[in-house]
Amino acid sequence: MERILRKCRIQNQLVRECLAECLGVYILILFGCGSVAQVTTTRNQKGEYLSINLGFALGVTLGVYVSRGVSGAHLNPAVSLSLCALGRHSWFKLPFYIFFQLLGAFLAAATVALQYYEAIQSYSGGELTVSGPNATAGIFCTFPDEYLSLLGGFIDQVIGTAALLLCILALGDSGQGSIPEGVQPVLVGAVVMVIGVSMGSNSGYALNPARDFGPRLFTYIAGWGVDVFTAGGGWWWVPLVAPCVGALLGTLVYELMIEVHHDPGLKHRRPCLL
Amino acid sequence: MERILRKCRIQNQLVRECLAECLGVYILILFGCGSVAQVTTTRNQKGEYLSINLGFALGVTLGVYVSRGVSGAHLNPAVSLSLCALGRHSWFKLPFYIFFQLLGAFLAAATVALQYYEAIQSYSGGELTVSGPNATAGIFCTFPDEYLSLLGGFIDQVIGTAALLLCILALGDSGQGSIPEGVQPVLVGAVVMVIGVSMGSNSGYALNPARDFGPRLFTYIAGWGVDVFTAGGGWWWVPLVAPCVGALLGTLVYELMIEVHHDPGLKHRRPCLL
Amino acid sequence: MERILRKCRIQNQLVRECLAECLGVYILILFGCGSVAQVTTTRNQKGEYLSINLGFALGVTLGVYVSRGVSGAHLNPAVSLSLCALGRHSWFKLPFYIFFQLLGAFLAAATVALQYYEAIQSYSGGELTVSGPNATAGIFCTFPDEYLSLLGGFIDQVIGTAALLLCILALGDSGQGSIPEGVQPVLVGAVVMVIGVSMGSNSGYALNPARDFGPRLFTYIAGWGVDVFTAGGGWWWVPLVAPCVGALLGTLVYELMIEVHHDPGLKHRRPCLL
Amino acid sequence: MERILRKCRIQNQLVRECLAECLGVYILILFGCGSVAQVTTTRNQKGEYLSINLGFALGVTLGVYVSRGVSGAHLNPAVSLSLCALGRHSWFKLPFYIFFQLLGAFLAAATVALQYYEAIQSYSGGELTVSGPNATAGIFCTFPDEYLSLLGGFIDQVIGTAALLLCILALGDSGQGSIPEGVQPVLVGAVVMVIGVSMGSNSGYALNPARDFGPRLFTYIAGWGVDVFTAGGGWWWVPLVAPCVGALLGTLVYELMIEVHHDPGLKHRRPCLL
Repeated sequence: MERILRKCRIQNQLVRECLAECLGVYILILFGCGSVAQVTTTRNQKGEYLSINLGFALGVTLGVYVSRGVSGAHLNPAVSLSLCALGRHSWFKLPFYIFFQLLGAFLAAATVALQYYEAIQSYSGGELTVSGPNATAGIFCTFPDEYLSLLGGFIDQVIGTAALLLCILALGDSGQGSIPEGVQPVLVGAVVMVIGVSMGSNSGYALNPARDFGPRLFTYIAGWGVDVFTAGGGWWWVPLVAPCVGALLGTLVYELMIEVHHDPGLKHRRPCLL
Repeated sequence: MERILRKCRIQNQLVRECLAECLGVYILILFGCGSVAQVTTTRNQKGEYLSINLGFALGVTLGVYVSRGVSGAHLNPAVSLSLCALGRHSWFKLPFYIFFQLLGAFLAAATVALQYYEAIQSYSGGELTVSGPNATAGIFCTFPDEYLSLLGGFIDQVIGTAALLLCILALGDSGQGSIPEGVQPVLVGAVVMVIGVSMGSNSGYALNPARDFGPRLFTYIAGWGVDVFTAGGGWWWVPLVAPCVGALLGTLVYELMIEVHHDPGLKHRRPCLL
Repeated sequence: MERILRKCRIQNQLVRECLAECLGVYILILFGCGSVAQVTTTRNQKGEYLSINLGFALGVTLGVYVSRGVSGAHLNPAVSLSLCALGRHSWFKLPFYIFFQLLGAFLAAATVALQYYEAIQSYSGGELTVSGPNATAGIFCTFPDEYLSLLGGFIDQVIGTAALLLCILALGDSGQGSIPEGVQPVLVGAVVMVIGVSMGSNSGYALNPARDFGPRLFTYIAGWGVDVFTAGGGWWWVPLVAPCVGALLGTLVYELMIEVHHDPGLKHRRPCLL
Repeated sequence: MERILRKCRIQNQLVRECLAECLGVYILILFGCGSVAQVTTTRNQKGEYLSINLGFALGVTLGVYVSRGVSGAHLNPAVSLSLCALGRHSWFKLPFYIFFQLLGAFLAAATVALQYYEAIQSYSGGELTVSGPNATAGIFCTFPDEYLSLLGGFIDQVIGTAALLLCILALGDSGQGSIPEGVQPVLVGAVVMVIGVSMGSNSGYALNPARDFGPRLFTYIAGWGVDVFTAGGGWWWVPLVAPCVGALLGTLVYELMIEVHHDPGLKHRRPCLL
């Protein structure tokens, strides 16, 4: 088998990185949205909100393990954008990364829909709806809680993604002291865990344009219809834009408060994040 | 004591590996099925679905610690099969591994039945049934939810085991960067944790022919009768076949998308998984 | 971007340390109080007491990662005080550390109030109260349970903070054997986790004057009024004083029972805690 | 302060080890029984069965960190006994270790009773009872479930402690491959976690004569009376005897199935467990 596999070898670095980003996000969404599907379709009988927190946290951790050696495991357009802004990633590669991140999320949503097809049918009585007691669109993409305005949701996502980037940059900052190689992906998962536990209730902590838009596109095509874009007062663009703003804000805060002040002799900037 | 113990030393490598696989799977099932027994017989008073997820996840972690240095800690016929297909394990040893994996699972199920004998009697009123409100067969082996067809269950187990192998191969892939020796078993447990949290509700995430068939055989013998094979529309063969298909699929996807593209100079394939 | 950032470089060591303490406590409170806000405003629908335990535990862990390389990550005036008493930190720096720890906690409380503004409005019907069924002051600072006297609460906080320091000193004691650099912050979080799980119900395990007083000051200013100081029989000073007493007690116990007895040749006291 | 502390230095190795065992068990019981107190007195409002599992698991982990460098962190007479039987610990020291383990558990129970004094008064209406709806003796020591016979409970504790020793020996077995120093205490905690999740419901997973008898003695003296010995059909001796039997059984199984077969050249037996 190995001999055959070797013939499929691709040497182009960018293609390999795109495949890794695609597979990494696929794993993240497969476990993340899968956990929402499990909790939703069993009406909290086989899971609870902490299960969803664990699904996304460990999904991120394993998504990083699946891609870190090849692409640096961004798994999030807002992370890629921040790294470009910091000069740690090439602007040229940015659109490719984003496209394959989106693709991975879309394919994972399709896989979750396949795996939970009969469960969703049984739960919803066959009707794919975005709101109401048997709504199932929330398995795939985020919607704001009823009390939340678009501005409130925007602020929520800016703060959440700023916290994400601030912590990720600290974990990758050699000026803070080292972390054993191979342990960082667990800590990145812990960041997502704690954000889910402390910033999840307003609008479902998307924090990631690909995580939200890929599955939303899938639900639009797969039968939930245009409601996935109109629901929540046209919520869909908030998890696209706010995480990018938040990521840049968090990056700026960490750089200005901590990283720029390190003794320059100590700085050995690593080329990739993790 | 040590002098006496030393006289029992077995030098045959295959026998030692089989003992290790047997004990490793024993630990996995002892804790995994034990957690289901606790949650079931206390009617969720001393545990919840997350307890079961933890039982199997930490069961796998500790099963790996108990056997990794001797047999490489496959603990799963579908994992052994994939490693054989990849040329990382000997086909000759495969049937021995599978037999002792099954044996370990069978013995662990018997131990759980012994430890929970009075609890099961009290819970079930003395009747060992496979379905109904006081069913206890589900402590030992998996059954599909009511809404699930055999095809749906087959797909569920293929996806679940593919995700398992994909993640395990990434954790063992030196092209992704190293992981401190001794930490990997925890990460393998985390994979099982997240699968339980995100893919557990359809049919109980067997993912492993030995984990399911060993205890099923035990319940068949120990008083639950032929129902354990006929229930769920003859469900019993799905967790035997689907995990093998899924394991090969997950292996193929990881190899084609990531591992074959690594720079060959970096590849120092390790002989065993963990 | 980097070139611009570099121009903001501050070389004064104390200023850098104060910024790091401020940001570290900010992260701790942002996640900690955020988790209380989520559990409170969703009436346990999107979280439970364990979520709050996780919020503070991982908040501490990430607060340590954000500051350990610069300030040693005290994040707690009672910890700073103990280290000064042990001669491991400068008394001169103590007031600066405390002020910036308080400032970080204050700013984080403001951020949580901003992020949960609409949630709190919706939950409380627009009335910011300290007690009653829709009370929200408990999101930010601690209050004793009804049955608790001031003396009982004082003892509770002394025991809790003594346990905290005792464990932290053990984790940092090289005479106990080493811990991989970069793993300690996770263990410090585990200490806070277990204290929350075992000593949280009496009065909310403040353990930290800055964690409690910074947010309390914020609620006083932001509309909850003087009740935050009068409630609980004038509870507010207990989480200021008792943690300092407890920290010194725990330090004394650990030193007298373990650390002073180490073989002096083995002692390479590290200048900072983590 | 350091100069004064240094004058208290004790050079006798056995005294130092006994102090460390005492403090280690103290920490274990303080967090373990504290978590039961929290869950009991809040009637599951501020914790659940998983909180208790976490309390004992992290209690063990931190108890190990507090003592590993001095005494090897047995923290359990059954563990000390097994290590003596294996020739890895001195029989002469055994009674000293056991006494100080018991003392630590007794003192920790007293501390928990002090910290939860008002909570227990409020919960129980001032009556300290061993059974009934407001029973509080179960905060401190274990009692069997109603359906359990003494024989069933004995088997339960033998299996549980055998599993504990089997896993601990595997974690300390260099023939299985190394584990980073400083990570093992976390894994020992994970063993206790999974036993609590999978073997906790029959009789409360004592697994440790000191953990059970020390606090039982305290409750006997502190007002719960002789019922703590007569309850459960005279249950009290089971968690004293069965863990010792189980520990030796688990040790024997691990040695016979795994450790004796290692290549002797690889064996560098370490003098202490962790």
